Amino acid sequence: MTETLNDLSSELLNLLEQGAIGELENALENAPQQDLRREISRLNQEDRSKLFECISRESGAGVLAQLSEAQATEFLSEIDAGIAADLIEALPSDIGSYLLRGMREHESSGILAEIEDTEESDDLRERISYPWDSAGGLMSDRVVAFRASSTVGEVLTELSENAAEYTDREVQYVYVNDDAGRLTGVLPLRDLVLTRRSVAVSDIMVVDPMCVRISATAGEIEDLFEERKFLGLPVVDDDHVLQGVVSREAVQEALTDQSTQDYLSASGIVAGEELRSMPMTLRSRRRLAWLGPNILLNILAAGVIAHYEDTLESVIALAVFLPIVSDMSGCSGNQAVAVSMRELTMEIIQPRDYLRVVWKEGIVGMMNGTILGIVLGSVAVLWKGNIYLGLVVGGALAINTILSVLIGGLVPLGLKRLKVDPALASGPILTTCTDMFGFFLVLSFASMLMSRLA
Amino acid sequence: MTETLNDLSSELLNLLEQGAIGELENALENAPQQDLRREISRLNQEDRSKLFECISRESGAGVLAQLSEAQATEFLSEIDAGIAADLIEALPSDIGSYLLRGMREHESSGILAEIEDTEESDDLRERISYPWDSAGGLMSDRVVAFRASSTVGEVLTELSENAAEYTDREVQYVYVNDDAGRLTGVLPLRDLVLTRRSVAVSDIMVVDPMCVRISATAGEIEDLFEERKFLGLPVVDDDHVLQGVVSREAVQEALTDQSTQDYLSASGIVAGEELRSMPMTLRSRRRLAWLGPNILLNILAAGVIAHYEDTLESVIALAVFLPIVSDMSGCSGNQAVAVSMRELTMEIIQPRDYLRVVWKEGIVGMMNGTILGIVLGSVAVLWKGNIYLGLVVGGALAINTILSVLIGGLVPLGLKRLKVDPALASGPILTTCTDMFGFFLVLSFASMLMSRLA
Repeated sequence: MTETLNDLSSELLNLLEQGAIGELENALENAPQQDLRREISRLNQEDRSKLFECISRESGAGVLAQLSEAQATEFLSEIDAGIAADLIEALPSDIGSYLLRGMREHESSGILAEIEDTEESDDLRERISYPWDSAGGLMSDRVVAFRASSTVGEVLTELSENAAEYTDREVQYVYVNDDAGRLTGVLPLRDLVLTRRSVAVSDIMVVDPMCVRISATAGEIEDLFEERKFLGLPVVDDDHVLQGVVSREAVQEALTDQSTQDYLSASGIVAGEELRSMPMTLRSRRRLAWLGPNILLNILAAGVIAHYEDTLESVIALAVFLPIVSDMSGCSGNQAVAVSMRELTMEIIQPRDYLRVVWKEGIVGMMNGTILGIVLGSVAVLWKGNIYLGLVVGGALAINTILSVLIGGLVPLGLKRLKVDPALASGPILTTCTDMFGFFLVLSFASMLMSRLA
Repeated sequence: MTETLNDLSSELLNLLEQGAIGELENALENAPQQDLRREISRLNQEDRSKLFECISRESGAGVLAQLSEAQATEFLSEIDAGIAADLIEALPSDIGSYLLRGMREHESSGILAEIEDTEESDDLRERISYPWDSAGGLMSDRVVAFRASSTVGEVLTELSENAAEYTDREVQYVYVNDDAGRLTGVLPLRDLVLTRRSVAVSDIMVVDPMCVRISATAGEIEDLFEERKFLGLPVVDDDHVLQGVVSREAVQEALTDQSTQDYLSASGIVAGEELRSMPMTLRSRRRLAWLGPNILLNILAAGVIAHYEDTLESVIALAVFLPIVSDMSGCSGNQAVAVSMRELTMEIIQPRDYLRVVWKEGIVGMMNGTILGIVLGSVAVLWKGNIYLGLVVGGALAINTILSVLIGGLVPLGLKRLKVDPALASGPILTTCTDMFGFFLVLSFASMLMSRLA
């Protein structure tokens, strides 16, 4: 297996150096998808750009279509905008617009400027004006529409006799429009097939079917899909004119992307966008965008310790417990953050349900805080033989655990209400608060009991 | 809005107390899905169990079908196994088996034992014997199959004349079997509709179509769906006999669940399973399952500090910097964990690609470590006016950042190779190592430069 992979990347490089373009195209076309994804990430940026320049546009588009979206957009942004534009044009228009939308504004506009003005490019421009996770961004405009007066037999005959026209369209649903193009009904293909041919479309169509506005978000569309077993929903504009169809599959993919991005954002990968094939300086800069604010918040929190140097000097053992209280409170708080994030996603809670969160987290915080406090306090007593040291560190951890789960449970609700991404910002806010409170509790308890500790 | 919600839960409770079952069933049936999900989580466990006992099985099944899977499985495990069995039987069998599979083994086997022995219950038992995220667990067995000798017209006529038989089947694809039930071809419904009626099925069917083994995982099936635009894939057993069809939608949902679970696991919610409607003691116990090992690891790491009490006593300012170094190294390391998790999911890297990770993370670690080290070192110099203090804490953070990204990048690969869930275990392993190294670096540098610091 290892050898096959090494073979592929060195084979690609060899063919590229020899200028054996035909063989290069063949090798790319015949490579298994997984190998292609891995090996093309291993080429350096220069070789990769050269590769896309050499091979035919069709072959390049074929490679892009095999890659994950993140890889394809990254590689498109590396190469010359004119070549990228050719590749986008060689791709089916929904894939092309999907990739363009995945790129940063200035990169995609550079590529769009290079695309020739045709009807298709106008369409592409309109498509990418919608957010990637909205109905307009996710829909396909290749729909099949008929008039209500047709019979089932006529529709089936039309489909079968002019099959060539319909082969690149979504025919899971046949839509029914009035003279102005406004959506009036829908007929699932399966109903069409399971109905006698003489019946009029208007007799079996679903009248005023469920549909979504072109601006609807993936989350809103998902709600509708959860209620009903539809494969797709018609998309209409403000005048109720049919614009396209958005499939359950496209919405699910958008939401999977979202959920992966939440995970990455919460781990400090801003907007969930890094791949190790990206340039080092870009990766470093993006990670620092998260680390920079974090180190400042950390210094702010640790500033609390600086106020208690005298206390620390008298009871140096406290320095051992400060990082433990800080870490454990962060752990407890992050659990509450994760549960709030999940319940927000599942729509079991809303931002205004803070009292429920306080109640439900408060009790668990008391239970877990008590147990963790006893564990840490016992370690302190066993280590130093001073029961007051145990009371100080155990008590501080117990109280801080309660505060942490309350803050952790509430912060995502507050951020959601303020329309800030809770996945990205909850962690730093939580740990800064819990560090400050934790250090304060340990050190102020210690200074109160100083005579017993020193 | 607030009032509507309060109305619903108090209305449900009132009707329950009055024993007005008919009205209760009506209220449940007419409640909007979002309100139902929220309000039924707000009832206490006793009331909820009473509610499911009172209402008819059909009405209860209707409620379950409106809830998210996590809620439905939780509520099923709360109530009497006999009633839960009735509810499962009242649900469509694929939803029923999906819910049973979402429950813990001992709970679902209790319910299964209560289900009467019918052909359908045998089917249910067989279905849940497959893992929830395998083809066998995700497939629907309601497929439509014909013989190769039929014509397109015959198939369409059969579908339309015996429509009642097919309405609960997946008819997006028509499968073609030989005499022994072995899969020999597939015909997308759209091809059937777009073909002249006299053509034989064998002439237009895809021969030896792509199919998946009943044991294939969601990830493997997703790979096939990424390559081709299929809506569903046929599932076959070891003898190539057609067992069912697995839809793209079911696979996407399984993967979204997986990705959400990764996020929750990484945040310390073991197996991503908590909802705030669960009993407090269960929630507390599950969270402690993560916190318990963590506090022990934390104490272990902080033990390093205890070895340097003399150093700390001489330079008490170091105590301020220890939690900062610990936190920041954790942040940097978690970014590397997240990128490795993403690249593993996208199959851009494999567990054996550690050299690539070392190289790619090492350079970013050096860049970010240098910058973070300069920031923290400068703060130390400005605060205490001692350049050596700046060198100690800045240098320690710089070196520890490099170690953190290396460990963070490699741990998920190692865990994957050991078949341990990297989402769950990477964080604790990472922070324990980086804390130990961080404390050691700060304090050993300080003790080397003691004469310049004190």
